[in-house]
Amino acid sequence: MSKTDFEETITRTRQKLSELESELKSLQASARSQSFAPKHFPELPEIDGIRMATAECGIKYKDRLDTLLVEIAPGSAIAGLFTTSRTKSAPVIWCEHALKHHQNTPDSSEHFGIIVNSGNSNAFTGKNGHTSVEQTAIKVADALKTQPEHIFVASTGVIGQPLPHDKIINKVSALKSDLMPSDWEKATRAIMTTDQWAKAAGATCLVENKTVNISAIAKGAGMIAPDMATMLVFIFTDAVVERNVLQEIVKDISNTTFNAITVDGDTSTSDTLLMVATKRAGHTPITVRNDTRLTAFKKALRKIMLNLSKQIVSDGEGATKLAEISVTGAKSARAAKKIAMSIANSPLVKTALAGQDPNWGRIVAAVGKSGEEADRDKLSIRFGDILVAENGLVADSYTEEQGAKYMLNERLKISVDVGIGSGKFTVWTCDLGHPYVTVNADYRS
Amino acid sequence: MSKTDFEETITRTRQKLSELESELKSLQASARSQSFAPKHFPELPEIDGIRMATAECGIKYKDRLDTLLVEIAPGSAIAGLFTTSRTKSAPVIWCEHALKHHQNTPDSSEHFGIIVNSGNSNAFTGKNGHTSVEQTAIKVADALKTQPEHIFVASTGVIGQPLPHDKIINKVSALKSDLMPSDWEKATRAIMTTDQWAKAAGATCLVENKTVNISAIAKGAGMIAPDMATMLVFIFTDAVVERNVLQEIVKDISNTTFNAITVDGDTSTSDTLLMVATKRAGHTPITVRNDTRLTAFKKALRKIMLNLSKQIVSDGEGATKLAEISVTGAKSARAAKKIAMSIANSPLVKTALAGQDPNWGRIVAAVGKSGEEADRDKLSIRFGDILVAENGLVADSYTEEQGAKYMLNERLKISVDVGIGSGKFTVWTCDLGHPYVTVNADYRS
Repeated sequence: MSKTDFEETITRTRQKLSELESELKSLQASARSQSFAPKHFPELPEIDGIRMATAECGIKYKDRLDTLLVEIAPGSAIAGLFTTSRTKSAPVIWCEHALKHHQNTPDSSEHFGIIVNSGNSNAFTGKNGHTSVEQTAIKVADALKTQPEHIFVASTGVIGQPLPHDKIINKVSALKSDLMPSDWEKATRAIMTTDQWAKAAGATCLVENKTVNISAIAKGAGMIAPDMATMLVFIFTDAVVERNVLQEIVKDISNTTFNAITVDGDTSTSDTLLMVATKRAGHTPITVRNDTRLTAFKKALRKIMLNLSKQIVSDGEGATKLAEISVTGAKSARAAKKIAMSIANSPLVKTALAGQDPNWGRIVAAVGKSGEEADRDKLSIRFGDILVAENGLVADSYTEEQGAKYMLNERLKISVDVGIGSGKFTVWTCDLGHPYVTVNADYRS
Repeated sequence: MSKTDFEETITRTRQKLSELESELKSLQASARSQSFAPKHFPELPEIDGIRMATAECGIKYKDRLDTLLVEIAPGSAIAGLFTTSRTKSAPVIWCEHALKHHQNTPDSSEHFGIIVNSGNSNAFTGKNGHTSVEQTAIKVADALKTQPEHIFVASTGVIGQPLPHDKIINKVSALKSDLMPSDWEKATRAIMTTDQWAKAAGATCLVENKTVNISAIAKGAGMIAPDMATMLVFIFTDAVVERNVLQEIVKDISNTTFNAITVDGDTSTSDTLLMVATKRAGHTPITVRNDTRLTAFKKALRKIMLNLSKQIVSDGEGATKLAEISVTGAKSARAAKKIAMSIANSPLVKTALAGQDPNWGRIVAAVGKSGEEADRDKLSIRFGDILVAENGLVADSYTEEQGAKYMLNERLKISVDVGIGSGKFTVWTCDLGHPYVTVNADYRS
């Protein structure tokens, strides 16, 4: 066969393959959304001091919500976490400044605002990117009768294309008029890009016998098609917590939730988490981190943040498995995290999950490449409750049949003890199968 | 449709998909081997002082060569590099000790030996793993009339299964009788596992008007099916170079060759490189690293090592593209390497290569996540000679058509300047497409 013949046959076969893959993908998506997606959008409590509105600005998509405006009552505390990428988007840099300004300025009688758009991430857009953010913030500040430094801006969608910020600016007056105490589902839909379902979670807890409400919305499905999917998270509470305490709590809980998930190890240029406390719950203010009244609040908040983290991982496009990877026996929690992430990001481990292959050898290799201390001859591995390997050897009781059967589950637990110390950490990941490649390689973005 | 119906339909579709994929894979392999594989096994010079023999021990495969014995003349210098994995295989640990022994012991009149098997990597085999290595080394030492400390052992193949070392031991006498001055192709075939072709390279150079010969064989195709594919490299020369100088040269050149390639970012538990200098070329000994007579030798050696490195990457199973990623303008060479590896290992970049998608946004994101300093507003990207982005923006002259056309090439050059300093580094990688997933997920190992 000549090279041209080969190429033609490959092209034809690839077309057939594409068709079958689409079929498989939609079937899997349906089957998966039955498993991973919540049955319905959750009930979220209203948060006193928060009003919101959504609009169709036509930034990229036609006839769908793509812009969210949130108005935040004066005196609120705001905390934030942003991507560690060295090629941060213009909105992220703006938010970092706005947050610093908030942290260093006494309470004023002015509102804060958050403006979010989907369809365009305003990343890698040069100096024009900054101008887009600034113009938008000025317009929103004007509508909310506050200063631009009080406006947080987030954008998600395609990279490298100028953000048509005029389309947003033209809708700001309408958004302002539409402000209402919370329509969480519409708000969540307005910030979605490739998400297969709207992600939200809410909870209440008691502080001094006062009900404290927490409501959170998120978008994100791994760093995936069409260009890259950012993680955006907005959490609102009426708790009376000072800004510095709020910042510490959010940062702390993120370590074991949003920073403990990975879809493909890639970091977006736009990841943004903002948390707002309107301080209207009526209890006396919490001003120090170790205040025991925080226990219930932190527990409720962690539950919400973990819930959203797992929703994001299980919505990794092409994901058919949600795997919890727990590492124990490491030198420190930091070392345990590095080992767990090494396993969770290993393409070989992730393809084995997709293939339902109990390939523990690849887990051993991933532990080894992490660079963290591990005692090869004390290493043990469990799939769920099944002991797979111990003392650096496959376990006597283990059979491949057991492992293969376990791997058919959609939710998997893999536990690894590395036999050195008492450091432990848990991360969550999804598999890497044909649907992932289909989404990321076959369809041009 | 019920969940069971979904699952049945998915199973059926997946079967069809599997068949088509096999077809596609074999076509691609044929097309690829036309592109990447050398037309024929290269001519390698004989190395005075080296004899070798191969055998069929039936370790895993039937009716194929799976064991190689190399006899090395007394007085030779040996250098070695091994995996940095924390879960190293028993043979690697043995070799590290043997190399240390060699480096700290004066020349003796005894031979050295290398014994290599394919089919079983003797990794994660507990204390029995060490016994297998020791027994094999004792037997080989006995046959070569030398001490076990002079025997280097390497194993490649499945992980976690006891090595049937008796099968090797039973053939040692026959191997010893068959020793001959080099049959490079058979030697290379004996150490192959999932390699699609036998990888070897040779060269000669002049030192003091004496011809110096270098011959090298390698196996490896990324960390891939059936369990994991180790990289094994054996380089032989007759150059008269002292062991400490040889070690420094090999280590140095590996940094920009074998340590500058990545298939999936995973590290094998068994990677081993051994270099032997028999000192028979007839020139006066080279005993210091900065000896100017080394220039030609190092150049020839680097050419061989880079050649083998690229062969390994382009044989990454499922690979349809060989991509050279050059990073310039970084703070240091080390930073440039980290950025280049971040790009080369990004699943999003690798799936884009597979999909022939000129998705430069993913390259920007990969630069950002490397954690190394980069000036977002000075960043530039080139595909071959095509300027894609500059000054943190898509280039005025760039069109998607240009990029899409370039991506059709099998050999790609991606250049990124991060606008900070003068550090630079080049790495090589392959794409991540359906064939990769097929090999690593669909077929049980």
